[in-house]
Amino acid sequence: MSPEAPIHEAPFKVGLLGFGTVGAAFAELLQERADEIERFNGRRPVISGVLTRTRGDFEEILAEADIIVEVMGGIEPAREYLLRAMRAGKDVVSANKQLLSQHGEELFETAREHDVRLRFEAAVAGTVPVVRVLEESLSATPIDRIHGIVNGTTNFILTEMTHGSSYAEALAEAQRKGYAEADPSDDVSGRDAAAKMAILARLAFGTPVHLDDVRYEGIEHLHGDDLEYAREFGLGLKLIGTAERIDGGLSVSVYPTFLYSGHPLAAISGSFNAVTVESETITEITLSGPGAGGRQTASAVLGDVVSVMTGGARPPAPPLPLRLVEDVQSAFYLHLDVADRPGVLASVTKVLGEHDVSIKSVVQRGMGENARLVMVTHPVVESSLRTAVERVGEFDFMRSTPRTIRVIEEEFV
Amino acid sequence: MSPEAPIHEAPFKVGLLGFGTVGAAFAELLQERADEIERFNGRRPVISGVLTRTRGDFEEILAEADIIVEVMGGIEPAREYLLRAMRAGKDVVSANKQLLSQHGEELFETAREHDVRLRFEAAVAGTVPVVRVLEESLSATPIDRIHGIVNGTTNFILTEMTHGSSYAEALAEAQRKGYAEADPSDDVSGRDAAAKMAILARLAFGTPVHLDDVRYEGIEHLHGDDLEYAREFGLGLKLIGTAERIDGGLSVSVYPTFLYSGHPLAAISGSFNAVTVESETITEITLSGPGAGGRQTASAVLGDVVSVMTGGARPPAPPLPLRLVEDVQSAFYLHLDVADRPGVLASVTKVLGEHDVSIKSVVQRGMGENARLVMVTHPVVESSLRTAVERVGEFDFMRSTPRTIRVIEEEFV
Repeated sequence: MSPEAPIHEAPFKVGLLGFGTVGAAFAELLQERADEIERFNGRRPVISGVLTRTRGDFEEILAEADIIVEVMGGIEPAREYLLRAMRAGKDVVSANKQLLSQHGEELFETAREHDVRLRFEAAVAGTVPVVRVLEESLSATPIDRIHGIVNGTTNFILTEMTHGSSYAEALAEAQRKGYAEADPSDDVSGRDAAAKMAILARLAFGTPVHLDDVRYEGIEHLHGDDLEYAREFGLGLKLIGTAERIDGGLSVSVYPTFLYSGHPLAAISGSFNAVTVESETITEITLSGPGAGGRQTASAVLGDVVSVMTGGARPPAPPLPLRLVEDVQSAFYLHLDVADRPGVLASVTKVLGEHDVSIKSVVQRGMGENARLVMVTHPVVESSLRTAVERVGEFDFMRSTPRTIRVIEEEFV
Repeated sequence: MSPEAPIHEAPFKVGLLGFGTVGAAFAELLQERADEIERFNGRRPVISGVLTRTRGDFEEILAEADIIVEVMGGIEPAREYLLRAMRAGKDVVSANKQLLSQHGEELFETAREHDVRLRFEAAVAGTVPVVRVLEESLSATPIDRIHGIVNGTTNFILTEMTHGSSYAEALAEAQRKGYAEADPSDDVSGRDAAAKMAILARLAFGTPVHLDDVRYEGIEHLHGDDLEYAREFGLGLKLIGTAERIDGGLSVSVYPTFLYSGHPLAAISGSFNAVTVESETITEITLSGPGAGGRQTASAVLGDVVSVMTGGARPPAPPLPLRLVEDVQSAFYLHLDVADRPGVLASVTKVLGEHDVSIKSVVQRGMGENARLVMVTHPVVESSLRTAVERVGEFDFMRSTPRTIRVIEEEFV
């Protein structure tokens, strides 16, 4: 060998499970970036096998591969393949949020037991590298709270509604642009966001969180006029996931939520994702970027492959269970359709006061039998608010069921 | 040993060079977080030696340590100590932007030669984990451009000026709040931001960039009335660092720059830092958080220590030199003090047109001998703009030297 000849290390073999939109984009991107990755890491990544419904043999792919990349989606057989790969001592990368939010502990436990890496950046917030940041940068920092816009479809719909579209129009536009599926229920019900928040909460707080532990609510029932009233209070509506330490426990939820314009997530519009991480040490950092398209997801998956190649990231730490807290404090927006009679506001505020619900701002629009009373409360324990609203709903001057939406108070300066 | 007794691995020994604000905060934070870090990584970090002007011996500290953390600042002896540590096979962490922006290649080369890690998250953007994201998540993505607000002091001053303060008032307020030094020249001249952009450009594009390669301009000469006019165009002023691929070359600069309100950096106010990374694959991601205080910087340094403990991050790749490009395209804001006579606007636009400067918006305020002509151009090559403005400055109706400020066009939707 001449002294100038480069020394070629063995290629880094990737076994690819799934070849849909993300899988195909991943294979293409890997080929485009192979030179650059080799220059940085000494080894060249190559795809050594592909498994689809119709081709490939899992055992052969597994035997050949240095790493298994799973982009099939769904629970089975993805779960079974990942477990078998880790048991065979292989590092794995997955983009599968359903699987991680429902079988995360089993996967983490298996990774720990076999001392392999389990990477899943693409499962959470599109191209926004929040998994990496939580795992590595912030391991030196105790996290107090995470707020996230982790579903691009609903953020797109809410942005359109803010500009005056109805829910149905906005959903149709999202479908036309390819941001929403023909059956959008996983997105608009909040369930997709809840799965991602379960994964983020597991990472940030080191405690097992199952999708079923996440309280969530979608955006299907939102009224355009709530968005209009909210503007008068300087509020914008987002579907916000929250994971926070409360009284030594942990609360994880996804709700349509009003934000003041100063909040770092208030400016995130269209199909973007963003996550804000708060901690006493760092105050708060915000990461934002486009929600997942095929190529963006593929880029996050490839980033995970590269981090395994560079030896970064450890098998997950054992869990530290925290109690799950359900009854948390929040400020609320209240929308009441009332008959416009003397004493209505007094009756309402009296009942609210009896349940410790104190009012920050109120707008009353009197139009005979069709008046509206819209208010924002100070933070209150959710169960108190619910009881108070239930009692308010019993007044004979009420014209429809009261509507409530959470509000995040202005905290940032 | 009873079967329940935990197996204690050897502690991970940190040799700390420097014990000023950041050093002291680092030592405190390390102690607070040692349990949690041990739980995740198996080894407990401890400070095995501290070097200050008056105590400690470098050779002893080096011999004892598993890693050297440099938070002394300044070029020497920090440079000498880091080189010696790496030559002794030790991984190093530094928060020293002066050193990295002026002797980066020597440090990278030494790290590569001795196969050790050189980490410097704290040197760039406060708590914003942009170094990690560029190194790891984005190694799978070819980066086209980075825009950054990487100096919290100047962002605070510009935010105050936007709210009506003069430069002097805003600077005094920044000093009162501890955001600006008694001698603020490194910040307000743009030099601090230029050093950080040199480091970011090196990382993002893999090409050696020295502080001297970065064209920069500060904020001292800005006029309050430029900010006022800019508001009429929907523009806000920031000190923006830019590193971008242009025609197979690289341009790195720091300039006061007007942004449209839709730009992801437009909403970053006060002493915050933020960086936007653009690439064809990921569109664009934005990371933001507080600029560096002692505890925030310490948190970034500790994050680097943890990433070395976990085996993440590789020695830097060899550089890929790109030609440095100086004459780039930009839109510009132009401010002209003119005598209010017929034909002034025609004369000005004729000269601009002869140099391919085309006008996007214009505001004229006539007040006799004291009129103003304020305009925003379409993107134009900088040298053409300069020549055109020089010729405009020669007209006898000009009342003072024309002022120009760069403008980033609205690109994001």
